[in-house]
Amino acid sequence: MLTFEILNRASTSHARRGRIRTSHGLIETPVFMPVGTAASVKSLDARDLEELGPEVILGNTYHLMLRPGSELIGRFGGLHRFMAYTGSILTDSGGFQVFSLEGLRKLTEQGVQFRSHIDGALFDLSPERAVAIQEELGSDIAMQLDECPPGQAPKEDVAVAMQRSLRWAARCIAARRRPEQALFGIVQGGTHLDLRAESAEKLSAMPFDGLAIGGVSVGEAPAEIERVVAHCAPLLPEHKPRYLMGVGTPADLVRGVAAGVDMFDCVMPTRNARNGMFFTSQGKLAIKNVVHRESDLPIDAACPCLTCRTYSRGYLRHLYTAHEISYYRLATLHNLTYYLGLMRDIRADLARAAFDVATYLARVHA
Amino acid sequence: MLTFEILNRASTSHARRGRIRTSHGLIETPVFMPVGTAASVKSLDARDLEELGPEVILGNTYHLMLRPGSELIGRFGGLHRFMAYTGSILTDSGGFQVFSLEGLRKLTEQGVQFRSHIDGALFDLSPERAVAIQEELGSDIAMQLDECPPGQAPKEDVAVAMQRSLRWAARCIAARRRPEQALFGIVQGGTHLDLRAESAEKLSAMPFDGLAIGGVSVGEAPAEIERVVAHCAPLLPEHKPRYLMGVGTPADLVRGVAAGVDMFDCVMPTRNARNGMFFTSQGKLAIKNVVHRESDLPIDAACPCLTCRTYSRGYLRHLYTAHEISYYRLATLHNLTYYLGLMRDIRADLARAAFDVATYLARVHA
Repeated sequence: MLTFEILNRASTSHARRGRIRTSHGLIETPVFMPVGTAASVKSLDARDLEELGPEVILGNTYHLMLRPGSELIGRFGGLHRFMAYTGSILTDSGGFQVFSLEGLRKLTEQGVQFRSHIDGALFDLSPERAVAIQEELGSDIAMQLDECPPGQAPKEDVAVAMQRSLRWAARCIAARRRPEQALFGIVQGGTHLDLRAESAEKLSAMPFDGLAIGGVSVGEAPAEIERVVAHCAPLLPEHKPRYLMGVGTPADLVRGVAAGVDMFDCVMPTRNARNGMFFTSQGKLAIKNVVHRESDLPIDAACPCLTCRTYSRGYLRHLYTAHEISYYRLATLHNLTYYLGLMRDIRADLARAAFDVATYLARVHA
Repeated sequence: MLTFEILNRASTSHARRGRIRTSHGLIETPVFMPVGTAASVKSLDARDLEELGPEVILGNTYHLMLRPGSELIGRFGGLHRFMAYTGSILTDSGGFQVFSLEGLRKLTEQGVQFRSHIDGALFDLSPERAVAIQEELGSDIAMQLDECPPGQAPKEDVAVAMQRSLRWAARCIAARRRPEQALFGIVQGGTHLDLRAESAEKLSAMPFDGLAIGGVSVGEAPAEIERVVAHCAPLLPEHKPRYLMGVGTPADLVRGVAAGVDMFDCVMPTRNARNGMFFTSQGKLAIKNVVHRESDLPIDAACPCLTCRTYSRGYLRHLYTAHEISYYRLATLHNLTYYLGLMRDIRADLARAAFDVATYLARVHA
């Protein structure tokens, strides 16, 4: 059911503008997907999302399978109906979170067994189960289960994980029961370009609807992320959407677009908002800083969001300091407006053949 | 600057419908005032308040004087501008919270000295200072500083507190510097009707813009609240607004209206929302109850709020269980819609001479 067309290509980089169609509508790319971990983009409601206008959000299978459970969400007609979101939803496979549960998990060729971080209950996740759960959730785009080794793992371990992820990729494809749900494969291989190339080549030959670069931003240096993405993205099939998982900063997005990536997700805008850090056209702003105490300025005079239209830095600093609940939503609305606006401008510049990496890196203060 | 006119009177009770005008607009009475403790009705933003439509909200002087401080709010042009609220604001005097700081405060005829519950800093509050702070906050209606003894205090102590509150009332009036800000006196006297009568009589002779019944719901039995209010309200001047402070349940509001009260405030709808308790046309609903786990019903099919229009009980239960931030706002929007709708219906029935106490007590499941 997923279709993808490329509308424009940059001449000075691998960047491209495109359009994905899912059963829940169009997604203009390059796109940033806000993270809605537990069936909620933290602090926001469905109307907020409608007004912000991300055309696609991400749900975390790991969190949803533990609470409230995919079976329950399936009984509500799927994640869209459950959380009253009418746009597209991409779900990850749960693997990334499970593999970060050091000591609480047991890995075999069959899959991974782990204990819930909430109540210690035992769960099994396999390629087949990851597909079944995501089908129950009813996301528009599902991800294969992959093994994601830590950034400091030795090359032999990274190679073993990459090979296993390839076998799991094939099992995920074989397990599909709902052809209307798209399925993406995930390139692994850490910072080893030969492993990445092998993974990309083998996955490209499989009938996936799109391909992702996984195992990035797992503890390696920022320059390594850039090197891996720049190497990897161009190896992926031209005619399928490319998704860089869990990355990152505004500069990471700009560089990723230049490398030919179409889709991004990251908790950074939402998590940083809750922690008091705002992205602005003038650079980052830490709201707890005492210089904002008496400031009647908005967070960003150039920003059209509800928060900037309505409130001063001084008021937001007060809400943050007093741990007022309303702070979290107001900050989240602003940071997502920044991220989504950045991507919209990049798409507009790609449309008029004017996307310039250096200009955008300067804009995001990289 | 405050004016008050009575538009209708019930024939079977002391209930009346009226209209208060402040420099920030009209307030239709009887009115319920949502509590915006620290310059925020917890979890909501200015647009939420505009859509909910309370014509007046309450701010807590105690919380605001500690953080961010009334001087700072004054520099922002007052509480309205600081929190971007365009309706009317009533502030309490800070006394109620200070007197609940058992052991952290020292009371003299001059005033009360106390330590901040946040950082232990020493503060002074006197009748003059309470007026000055509220003038700095720029509320439309300020309250006199009063002494509020606990519900179980002996009659002698209650009498001493009531007499001191009368002297403080006179000092508050003398301290006024901003005639455009209304000032209300507060009747004290605990559950002793003779003390209440004396307090009401003396305060009625002072040039207050309205009068409040204070020292209620401080630990006494519910029946005592009803008895005191029924006795007290009719003793207050007919042509001034009457405000029952910090009370209460929907049934308390209905009985208060019948006794002739015009204004109410209480944290109940907002606090109970955050704790998982919803007010509905069918009675109270505890969202954590497992019966709601798979329920696709709205909290209240008869409710027009954003939450009931958009979400199921099952989804709200999930948000509550997962401690998702968005839960608090969605629940608060619903409970305030219930309280404000109750008061709107009471006003409509008063307007057509059809307000019936028994009907409303049945409606609120009392």
